[in-house]
Amino acid sequence: MLSPIAWRTPPRHYGPWERVVSLLTEGLIAAGVEVTLFATGDSLTRGNLHTVCPSGYEEDKSVDPHVWSVLHMSEVFEQAEKFDIIHNHFDFTPLTYSRLIETPLLTTIHGFSSPRILPVYQKYDSTSFYVSISDADRAPELDYIATIHHGIDLENFTFNPQPEDYLLYFGRVHPDKGTREAIDIAKQCDRRLIIAGIIQDESYFREVIQPKIDDSQIRYIGSVGPDQRDLLLGNALALLHPINFAEPFGLSVVESIACGTPVIAFNKGSMSEIIQHGKTGFLVSTVEEAMDAVDSIPEIDRRACREDAERRFTVGRMVDQYIQVYEQILLKPEKRHEDKNHSVIPGRGPGYA
Amino acid sequence: MLSPIAWRTPPRHYGPWERVVSLLTEGLIAAGVEVTLFATGDSLTRGNLHTVCPSGYEEDKSVDPHVWSVLHMSEVFEQAEKFDIIHNHFDFTPLTYSRLIETPLLTTIHGFSSPRILPVYQKYDSTSFYVSISDADRAPELDYIATIHHGIDLENFTFNPQPEDYLLYFGRVHPDKGTREAIDIAKQCDRRLIIAGIIQDESYFREVIQPKIDDSQIRYIGSVGPDQRDLLLGNALALLHPINFAEPFGLSVVESIACGTPVIAFNKGSMSEIIQHGKTGFLVSTVEEAMDAVDSIPEIDRRACREDAERRFTVGRMVDQYIQVYEQILLKPEKRHEDKNHSVIPGRGPGYA
Repeated sequence: MLSPIAWRTPPRHYGPWERVVSLLTEGLIAAGVEVTLFATGDSLTRGNLHTVCPSGYEEDKSVDPHVWSVLHMSEVFEQAEKFDIIHNHFDFTPLTYSRLIETPLLTTIHGFSSPRILPVYQKYDSTSFYVSISDADRAPELDYIATIHHGIDLENFTFNPQPEDYLLYFGRVHPDKGTREAIDIAKQCDRRLIIAGIIQDESYFREVIQPKIDDSQIRYIGSVGPDQRDLLLGNALALLHPINFAEPFGLSVVESIACGTPVIAFNKGSMSEIIQHGKTGFLVSTVEEAMDAVDSIPEIDRRACREDAERRFTVGRMVDQYIQVYEQILLKPEKRHEDKNHSVIPGRGPGYA
Repeated sequence: MLSPIAWRTPPRHYGPWERVVSLLTEGLIAAGVEVTLFATGDSLTRGNLHTVCPSGYEEDKSVDPHVWSVLHMSEVFEQAEKFDIIHNHFDFTPLTYSRLIETPLLTTIHGFSSPRILPVYQKYDSTSFYVSISDADRAPELDYIATIHHGIDLENFTFNPQPEDYLLYFGRVHPDKGTREAIDIAKQCDRRLIIAGIIQDESYFREVIQPKIDDSQIRYIGSVGPDQRDLLLGNALALLHPINFAEPFGLSVVESIACGTPVIAFNKGSMSEIIQHGKTGFLVSTVEEAMDAVDSIPEIDRRACREDAERRFTVGRMVDQYIQVYEQILLKPEKRHEDKNHSVIPGRGPGYA
């Protein structure tokens, strides 16, 4: 299991890729699978931890991201013969080592940071395996073995039938995530809004968000750890998720629903796969529609939200689906190396993506 | 031969690593060695050109550097069995593929951009081969097979016994290279200075250099191609090279000497290996010492400069030395993979470098 090394696995606060890796790893171990986790040296697992890089480059600025990323990822390939499958969660670069080993490589594509990375996935499409994290996030050019929605650890998210009256924004502070739009919705509804999350775009925070924070109606509380997260999500009247990009998956959306808190989201990316409109939240397109949705919150049964998370978004379900994928790969050796001499098609240069 | 893909091989103007790769490749082919050059699609060679990336990422901003670098470098390793030796000129990342193949890897270390990259060279020290480009640039932690100074194509540098009276700065405009110090030397000697080279540090140029340019005593003419370079170097009274860093090798210093133009350099890095003090230039420590050196230029015999370049810095000499290294590697299989399971030593984290 090749985790990213941006953050510890599991992350202390933010770090969605590392969080999913941790939940999957521990779930697989509980299911009897032998797992070696390749992650930062401070990572926590009940499996075997193999580590090159002492701490995450986002947490420890003495860690050079490029240097330690290539030392980290090459390590798993240098030990490939020890493993039946290598499961990569560290984006596209590991694919470029995959034709030099015999062990099959499965990559969970946690999202495309840019269409410019697509040529790498295209080159290795015929000789490795891809899982998408939502149907919405599939690139039509690629061949996928499955879509597997993330699961969450429901024990860390407590059902709360009696929330307070604030709205919540929970995620990175970044234009993609719609922090400004969440503030607009709350202000126009005359509701309180709590904003929690790391600041990923400093100038956006300073110029657009900070002037609107008044510490009473609109509050910013920074990034929060697991305990506070559970309380914040559970006590919210609704989660606002007015995203401006095709989000491949929204962990916070599922976490909110697990607490019984419905989600009002802009209908982009994976939102329609996660939220059941009118049952666990509302899919809307504009700030005005979101305001109407806030008025409709009393129509949502919070227990139905919790039950939906219990049915569709458990770690157990995610683990079972990945085990099925591993079994398929082990029964399908013909894909591996069938096309080892295939290279990037000439003329299909960077203009293609 | 794995070239970088920042620029075309050979480069149109700037691109010292690509220039050395091209000179070596064509020299090896002339000596009867069969060479496949892995470089950008617009590259020029009399050997076999294998290409993934259509053009250099410094020349074509649609080329994503990370995406195309890993597609480019993995390509040579995927074809490793076709080659007796892979010769890497593309920094440290290719090393991380080297234990997955049987073909020996030789890396010419063109310089250490930062001590933070040293852990990669340390990890692969026992299973691959390193050439330093000067004795000064050797890291004491590493085991080198040879130091090989670059050679230049002397046909492109015409001996000029009768120069004009200007001083020349030839190189990247960057604080490391001492553009400001060159201006100070020229002004205090009351001499004309021509500055030629790409602007690598925009704010340094704008804030420190541009205000001193008066288009008569101090001129900036941008980056120049081969023909103009020959005239500029040959007509200069002296080249000023007041570097503020331990330069691993100075191609422009050798090119200047080849035209008969002596070099006044700050005595750092490889300068004392390239310049013969009092014969082909002067090694100095301060602007004041450089001013004295300008006064001493008439003592230098320009023909002796040319003869020194002809004796010590030809492509033929460089090619012969690399062929000797290749022969040593082919006779020394015991180093390859002797230590395949050696990993980064625990606790020797990024704090080490």
